[in-house]
Amino acid sequence: MIKVGIIGSTGYAGQELVRILLQHPEAEIVWYGSRSYIDKQYYEVFQNMFELVDAKCLDDNMDELAAKADVIFTATPQGLCASLVNEEVLSKVKIVDLSADFRIKDVATYESWYGITHAAPQYIDEAVYGLVEINREKIKNARLLANPGCYPTCSILSIYPMIKEGIIVPETVIIDAKSGTSGAGRSAKVANLYCEVNENIKAYGVASHRHTPEIEEQLGYAAGKPVYLNFTPHLVPMNRGILVTAYATLAKQVTYDEVKAIYDTYYKNEYFVRVLDEGVCPETRWVEGSNFVDVNFKIDPRTNRLIMMGAMDNLVKGAAGQAVQNMNLMFGLPENMGLQLVPMFP
Amino acid sequence: MIKVGIIGSTGYAGQELVRILLQHPEAEIVWYGSRSYIDKQYYEVFQNMFELVDAKCLDDNMDELAAKADVIFTATPQGLCASLVNEEVLSKVKIVDLSADFRIKDVATYESWYGITHAAPQYIDEAVYGLVEINREKIKNARLLANPGCYPTCSILSIYPMIKEGIIVPETVIIDAKSGTSGAGRSAKVANLYCEVNENIKAYGVASHRHTPEIEEQLGYAAGKPVYLNFTPHLVPMNRGILVTAYATLAKQVTYDEVKAIYDTYYKNEYFVRVLDEGVCPETRWVEGSNFVDVNFKIDPRTNRLIMMGAMDNLVKGAAGQAVQNMNLMFGLPENMGLQLVPMFP
Amino acid sequence: MIKVGIIGSTGYAGQELVRILLQHPEAEIVWYGSRSYIDKQYYEVFQNMFELVDAKCLDDNMDELAAKADVIFTATPQGLCASLVNEEVLSKVKIVDLSADFRIKDVATYESWYGITHAAPQYIDEAVYGLVEINREKIKNARLLANPGCYPTCSILSIYPMIKEGIIVPETVIIDAKSGTSGAGRSAKVANLYCEVNENIKAYGVASHRHTPEIEEQLGYAAGKPVYLNFTPHLVPMNRGILVTAYATLAKQVTYDEVKAIYDTYYKNEYFVRVLDEGVCPETRWVEGSNFVDVNFKIDPRTNRLIMMGAMDNLVKGAAGQAVQNMNLMFGLPENMGLQLVPMFP
Amino acid sequence: MIKVGIIGSTGYAGQELVRILLQHPEAEIVWYGSRSYIDKQYYEVFQNMFELVDAKCLDDNMDELAAKADVIFTATPQGLCASLVNEEVLSKVKIVDLSADFRIKDVATYESWYGITHAAPQYIDEAVYGLVEINREKIKNARLLANPGCYPTCSILSIYPMIKEGIIVPETVIIDAKSGTSGAGRSAKVANLYCEVNENIKAYGVASHRHTPEIEEQLGYAAGKPVYLNFTPHLVPMNRGILVTAYATLAKQVTYDEVKAIYDTYYKNEYFVRVLDEGVCPETRWVEGSNFVDVNFKIDPRTNRLIMMGAMDNLVKGAAGQAVQNMNLMFGLPENMGLQLVPMFP
Repeated sequence: MIKVGIIGSTGYAGQELVRILLQHPEAEIVWYGSRSYIDKQYYEVFQNMFELVDAKCLDDNMDELAAKADVIFTATPQGLCASLVNEEVLSKVKIVDLSADFRIKDVATYESWYGITHAAPQYIDEAVYGLVEINREKIKNARLLANPGCYPTCSILSIYPMIKEGIIVPETVIIDAKSGTSGAGRSAKVANLYCEVNENIKAYGVASHRHTPEIEEQLGYAAGKPVYLNFTPHLVPMNRGILVTAYATLAKQVTYDEVKAIYDTYYKNEYFVRVLDEGVCPETRWVEGSNFVDVNFKIDPRTNRLIMMGAMDNLVKGAAGQAVQNMNLMFGLPENMGLQLVPMFP
Repeated sequence: MIKVGIIGSTGYAGQELVRILLQHPEAEIVWYGSRSYIDKQYYEVFQNMFELVDAKCLDDNMDELAAKADVIFTATPQGLCASLVNEEVLSKVKIVDLSADFRIKDVATYESWYGITHAAPQYIDEAVYGLVEINREKIKNARLLANPGCYPTCSILSIYPMIKEGIIVPETVIIDAKSGTSGAGRSAKVANLYCEVNENIKAYGVASHRHTPEIEEQLGYAAGKPVYLNFTPHLVPMNRGILVTAYATLAKQVTYDEVKAIYDTYYKNEYFVRVLDEGVCPETRWVEGSNFVDVNFKIDPRTNRLIMMGAMDNLVKGAAGQAVQNMNLMFGLPENMGLQLVPMFP
Repeated sequence: MIKVGIIGSTGYAGQELVRILLQHPEAEIVWYGSRSYIDKQYYEVFQNMFELVDAKCLDDNMDELAAKADVIFTATPQGLCASLVNEEVLSKVKIVDLSADFRIKDVATYESWYGITHAAPQYIDEAVYGLVEINREKIKNARLLANPGCYPTCSILSIYPMIKEGIIVPETVIIDAKSGTSGAGRSAKVANLYCEVNENIKAYGVASHRHTPEIEEQLGYAAGKPVYLNFTPHLVPMNRGILVTAYATLAKQVTYDEVKAIYDTYYKNEYFVRVLDEGVCPETRWVEGSNFVDVNFKIDPRTNRLIMMGAMDNLVKGAAGQAVQNMNLMFGLPENMGLQLVPMFP
Repeated sequence: MIKVGIIGSTGYAGQELVRILLQHPEAEIVWYGSRSYIDKQYYEVFQNMFELVDAKCLDDNMDELAAKADVIFTATPQGLCASLVNEEVLSKVKIVDLSADFRIKDVATYESWYGITHAAPQYIDEAVYGLVEINREKIKNARLLANPGCYPTCSILSIYPMIKEGIIVPETVIIDAKSGTSGAGRSAKVANLYCEVNENIKAYGVASHRHTPEIEEQLGYAAGKPVYLNFTPHLVPMNRGILVTAYATLAKQVTYDEVKAIYDTYYKNEYFVRVLDEGVCPETRWVEGSNFVDVNFKIDPRTNRLIMMGAMDNLVKGAAGQAVQNMNLMFGLPENMGLQLVPMFP
């Protein structure tokens, strides 16, 4: 039984970790961390957990936590995980960081996009980027795991094989992404009130969203050279789900079958990536509550472009589910243990 | 392994049965019945099932079905199950009927509220009303099980103990219920289009909804005499969930603690009924995706009335989940097997 | 041209006042009051007003305001209006108070339900309760107008004629109301975040909501004696709209035609109250954006009860629209001037 | 008083025409055409019109209609308007066609994208494309007006000035558009049911949507040469609104001020196009219910691209509002008469 501590258990991603781990046969939550709700029963914050969780929210006491837990999930704002990590901690406990602190290898890039000084740059090299379908082997031995961002997960899985195999021209990539509102977090802001989000759609962070360099770095590995691209997120009036619609110029003439074969090669053995049938567009409703990413594509011969699409639950594969998938690998468990969640519809 | 056949597997309740049974350790679906989609891959109707279900939709062939299955779920319009049931079928296979055909013991009442002639009235007596928390023992030996309606399940569980223990005056009961739109089914009607339901709330079936006599019958058993009450359902712009707010005049002076003690007596050992803490109102979001019913109450000394509240997922405890709960009992399995679903929020 | 000052112009009701008054041929807004956004362009708070309003938000300077304006709307939290009113102000300017400060005639009742000391009880007697369809004549000469609460407006208009004419037993009235989320205001609270409200329905303020005594007082006038009743509001995942479903025991045998005739007598000359055709239930979508209240009823002979229903836009007839309707009367204008807004659907 | 006939008055666009025209000081609806609801009171189809419209739905009798009306709006499926138009009709009455029949000048293009044979190709040349901000002068004398599509209106207004002034490279244009569900129409289809659309986002018509050639034709006029581009619409869980996010490579180095100056030149005198302040992204909520299009842009120096954004109400500026704007021009009225609708929020 893996003993799990969660720092930031009362945000949406933290609570989703609890939902998933409660149904995981080999994990047990031993620490419900939450600075905002210290000493409050966890179920008082999330009444869905009534009679399922009998534990109080605790402050972040790293010494105690590291002693009690085998793995710590940090579902916290940027900067916190970096401030907690040190050799002593890492010698005792594995860390799966759901924040962005260790996702980007170049410190300057991190500091410039996030506007903060990195508190533990010495661990960036060691940290493993936890996109399992691409980094599986490295993840198995990681002590410090950087769980990918929600938009990057969906974007990279949709586009990576096409760049890697030279099907598209990397510098032409444009990603237009749409997310449900849970991605905005649970803090009380006017902009996230029901009446502000409902019956509305908007772009935000245009040409400046922090997930841009994370996507660029990973796709750069596929391209073998730096990639700069456009990434525009939009806020959609729904709770969960991310949809990515990506565009790129074809690097060469290809047929549907050729492109399909590449996606199949990359993903046919991947439990969590589903390459849809021809003509079927990914939709967020078909993955809700699950760890699946549905991907598909369309060739437009009129413009010589490839349209790549991906859909995923931002709180599962985009956060808590992927974190547990990583935990499974790091502890030698079957990758999909506790994650064979059937998408819930409607 | 229990072999399960589903007739009507492409409605919302049918699909929810599939979602739940796929995660059930002792059940296997052997028949995906659907008159509307015969020969179509099931996942083409519900893409969430892509790579999870590899089976085609089949017509209703009762002979074949009864031979293959241990239990048949009928998630079909009123009248169909009654038309299929006969001694030969019942001798081979158990039936869990999610329609209303066998819920009401008085044929005349059924025929008058539903406007159809009952095709198999001779089986009404045998049929067991599958509200586990009240009828548990009878269910264990049932061949023909009438799975309760969604509104009745939530209404009865919220009110039953208060009538049974003489706390409220039965003939003063007024039930004001609110349901998500999945309760309206998946057939293409203008009234259920997105733009008709969204940004709207309305009452419907006022003083004439078919679930009224079902609730009255069950509460009549508690009262020891016929009960007539008001039941008004409302359509809410959300996918899932039923909320019941019920009112009744107190039959005697009672304290919070006395009423709470009664609810606890009835439900403290019930896994699926959660009596909330004082002052906490049931909300549908806290039970979504799970088989829980959350109940609570408030005494209003100003008007000498008791307000009883219940929240539940109409597709789970109100349909597919309760059906599986009944199946578990009918096959000697632990009642909550495959049903320990943690509510999904948000 | 009536010069209008608005205190609290950046809440939802305040902004709705702006929307309506901008389209009013005889009104001109001269003061956009907002403590939270002082010196900010009004359109920066509400971008719908871009190029329509060129004015900055101002602090509450009553001297200046009273000098500039002919009428002041206070769309502010409880207590503020009472703290501003005095003889000097009232001698210069009329006040339409959208808060509850002057709605309830009994100070003790106000102070007990609202939990604050009334700052200007000496003006309660003078204040006129601005439910036009009942108090029209008094409103015409009012200096200080108490604009009714949203729930009370819809509840009273639905029920009043039935009590006044002795059709129902007053002490049996139970009001189950449902409101869109704009009724919760625009302040940043976790409970009102999109993901908390969406896909959910809940009761709140059970047996304790502040609109209860306001409804009781007005229905008491109809009954000619004090009335105590149950009022339960619910929060619905939609922006606008209030639906009231009210229940009461019939005081005598009545037919549909008799009841219909009474509603028609009260409302056939009322522009803003629409008594629907037999069998048509009020729905909030059909009044959205307008000042209409749609009412209807159903007799249930099985339980000897009358079900009364009303639907209305909480921000229009329930707040800003009714306030302008009152202003029109107070300034001798046609009652529906600037208010002939066609409901917007979908 | 302009006498207006509407063919297709019971679709969403038809009903929006009614809402707008009822508030238009110089228009009077004399014909509520609807094949589906012949002889039914119009308000029975749309209860928001109760007590506002007292007229029955009529069949399409062109002779009678042309005799009675000064202008006919056809809010009908593709092909119908083309089948009705002839010299006799056009000699008696002006036609504003909200369908696509006369939008595209090249018959072969129309027939290939729409899959039907054009019934009146001889009138295509005469027909005027009714995008007022670009074609104002021609519209004034039109007998047969092709009201632009919803997506094209928003896309063209966002992009046109940039191509016309050579700021962007036309063949690099990629349009990623998002629409509320009223754009899908009011016919009963499973895909448009509440539970199918809610909590979901999806792309549709990828590389094949019929609005593509319409956009290409108009932007081709700006470019002075044929333009081929990518256009991808998405379905958003909301009633109204279209958001366009468009991408293109810059043709030359430009500053924010230079680009802003061009937009201002094109739109500063346009009542219905609002060029937002720097950094403010268009959002559909700020234009809901109005005839405004809000546009803005962002230069991304990292990728040398321009991101252009536009937001609009698909039923107003994207359909009924623009149709009335065209009618105003065709009858010599002020262009914004009856259209100074303040956007409704929330």
